Amino acid sequence: MAARVAPPDAACMHTRAPRIGIVGAGVAGLQLALFLRQHGVETTIFTDRTPVQLLGSRLPSTVCRFAPTRDRERALGAEHWDDPALATNGVHFSITGAPLQFSGAFARAASFVDMRLYQATLLEDAANAGVRVVNGALHLSDVLVRAKQHDLLVIATGRGRLSDLFPRVEDRSPYAEPQRRLFAGLFNGIAHASQQTLSFAISPGHGEIFTAPFFTLTGLVSGILVEAIPGGDLEPLTHTRYADDPAGFETALIDALRVHAPMVFERIDRSAFALTGPLDLLQGAITPVVRAGFVEIKPGVFAQAIGDAHVLNDPIMGQGANAASFAARTLGEAILSGGPFDAQFCTHVEQRIWAYTRSVTEWSNASLQQPPPHVLHVFEAASNNSAIADAVVDSFGYPQRAWSVFGSPDGASAFVRSFESAAA
Amino acid sequence: MAARVAPPDAACMHTRAPRIGIVGAGVAGLQLALFLRQHGVETTIFTDRTPVQLLGSRLPSTVCRFAPTRDRERALGAEHWDDPALATNGVHFSITGAPLQFSGAFARAASFVDMRLYQATLLEDAANAGVRVVNGALHLSDVLVRAKQHDLLVIATGRGRLSDLFPRVEDRSPYAEPQRRLFAGLFNGIAHASQQTLSFAISPGHGEIFTAPFFTLTGLVSGILVEAIPGGDLEPLTHTRYADDPAGFETALIDALRVHAPMVFERIDRSAFALTGPLDLLQGAITPVVRAGFVEIKPGVFAQAIGDAHVLNDPIMGQGANAASFAARTLGEAILSGGPFDAQFCTHVEQRIWAYTRSVTEWSNASLQQPPPHVLHVFEAASNNSAIADAVVDSFGYPQRAWSVFGSPDGASAFVRSFESAAA
Repeated sequence: MAARVAPPDAACMHTRAPRIGIVGAGVAGLQLALFLRQHGVETTIFTDRTPVQLLGSRLPSTVCRFAPTRDRERALGAEHWDDPALATNGVHFSITGAPLQFSGAFARAASFVDMRLYQATLLEDAANAGVRVVNGALHLSDVLVRAKQHDLLVIATGRGRLSDLFPRVEDRSPYAEPQRRLFAGLFNGIAHASQQTLSFAISPGHGEIFTAPFFTLTGLVSGILVEAIPGGDLEPLTHTRYADDPAGFETALIDALRVHAPMVFERIDRSAFALTGPLDLLQGAITPVVRAGFVEIKPGVFAQAIGDAHVLNDPIMGQGANAASFAARTLGEAILSGGPFDAQFCTHVEQRIWAYTRSVTEWSNASLQQPPPHVLHVFEAASNNSAIADAVVDSFGYPQRAWSVFGSPDGASAFVRSFESAAA
Repeated sequence: MAARVAPPDAACMHTRAPRIGIVGAGVAGLQLALFLRQHGVETTIFTDRTPVQLLGSRLPSTVCRFAPTRDRERALGAEHWDDPALATNGVHFSITGAPLQFSGAFARAASFVDMRLYQATLLEDAANAGVRVVNGALHLSDVLVRAKQHDLLVIATGRGRLSDLFPRVEDRSPYAEPQRRLFAGLFNGIAHASQQTLSFAISPGHGEIFTAPFFTLTGLVSGILVEAIPGGDLEPLTHTRYADDPAGFETALIDALRVHAPMVFERIDRSAFALTGPLDLLQGAITPVVRAGFVEIKPGVFAQAIGDAHVLNDPIMGQGANAASFAARTLGEAILSGGPFDAQFCTHVEQRIWAYTRSVTEWSNASLQQPPPHVLHVFEAASNNSAIADAVVDSFGYPQRAWSVFGSPDGASAFVRSFESAAA
């Protein structure tokens, strides 16, 4: 690899307003584009799909946006789904087959919005705000061409294999293969839980089932995410082809819910239960990986990775949007502070992002294993004390806080004890 | 009304390139915008909904686009749904309770595409082509403001009561009230007819039922349009609230199809039959009206009406998109020929458009009455002669030709005789 040589006009480059190119229009890319534009920065976003193409595509995820992410959206003028009737107000947690369950409330509500709708809407917002939107395929060769036209290129998508630009960081990436097989789908015919809570059911040996009110193009439906342990009862849902036998698939899913998430099963109206549409279903698996946060793509021009391009986790703790939003805001503030957008700049940004996303990664990775005794101890305490239950549930929006509780026996004990002393 | 005074700079105005403002992003507005932009004319389109808002809105219609309209789309680079698997290749016509039925093929296929998807896609096309797209409510006051910024304003929407700008032409508007109550919906669970034909079932005394392959955001489904004669069996479908009892509504619709469109009923898979989504249903009624084709909205600035703003028909003959597309092309070509865009220009355009849409209006209005003997004579001839059946069906794409056949006993006789002499 050639040694880096500062271009002769480097000083000159950064006396004028910077030009930022963002590749990818997910949570990270869109929030960064809106933030930069809000502060007058000339910003281009490159995306492979228009709003119409997004809305005609397959369900990509079942993303939860917690209060801090929603705050950042509000600051960007992108609070399109603030109606309390659409909110998710808490979590009902249960371990199937065990007498352990509790419900807790978020201090401020979370929200599940179909990412196809979210991305399409924020892409329109960005265009209306003056972000230049360029549609087209996202290939590495394009990125290299675009690098010439920007002072900093931001890679905010794992699509088109662009994340391969950034080397895997081995000591932050403990898994060589997926720990769960995934099924996600949108359904009619499930009554929403009281308080519109997210149901989080752990079925030991089989996996986890998440069910929540989910806002899509046509209104509020139910989103189901099944995290299936390979070889367990739930795994067939993650690879059986729905289109081959829709009614059979729906029956198999209902049977799985009856056994592994009985609190959700009880809310099903059998006659109305159905996938909301042929594309509203996703099957797959994710190998968690942390990559280097930046790379010099040509002498003097750097690409910074944010969101999934930088840190990709299994969705088990629902932190993807939060981490992407945090990273976008962190990078956005750094850009406003000024260049040069060199290795030092990118290193600093990566470190600030990792200070947050380390908790997300370690918590998500740990949650893919059997819960250790100190985690079960916190769950038991929550099932006996509603203040603890609320605190546990609210911590889902604050992964650093959550990981300080769940990451070690000491943290768990200190957390539970803090309520004892408060009650004393 | 003030007499028209030519502005002092009228000559000067039209030596530079004209600026055209189009209010409304339906078939007429979008095709005109794309056509003008293709020829380098500075064009702005005003619309009250973004692509995302369009795709999240209620089903607006079940529009058929015949071959001449599709040709014009192809010339505009807007042929997004050309896959033959999505096409409608002919019409199966029947009179329920009578031994009269025939199938005919279009010489070139027609297409039913969800107008929400169509409009959203062509709106993106227009923006990408360099049409300026302005989003916002469409009120008369806005139109007056915008008139100052354009050399010609085109009103291409009936929304926001903008069509009220154009006086009703009494002698072209025979009806004071709707002749049909309408129900339209998109459904899963109807097998497509062989050759993917449109089923056109007349049930005497009750109305007409149209069923066709229909492409929407999620794929190919079935579109049903019920044209209910007030007081007949079909009318309850046009005002019963679906949301109050979806299963009951679907049962009532199936019952209606069994009696009034048995050829469609036979293709229903009861277990899969369902509305495709909560917004994929429309109920209403239309009073057919022809309006003046233009108005002087401020001294020297004219507004030309095209599409539904000019001529609004009951959808019984499915000619709305064709008429809108024809009008857009006609006006577009006139604009390219140059201004001034004055009363003489607008009169000339209106006359050219009416030369086509007169057939659409008279044919559609006549079809709202019981078929007279000469029409039944053509249908009988078609049921006995496949060449006549094909010619009848293909004429649906060419309303002037269709009306020359169906508009008078002489035309009908001449049409049928032309096949006898060909066979002789």
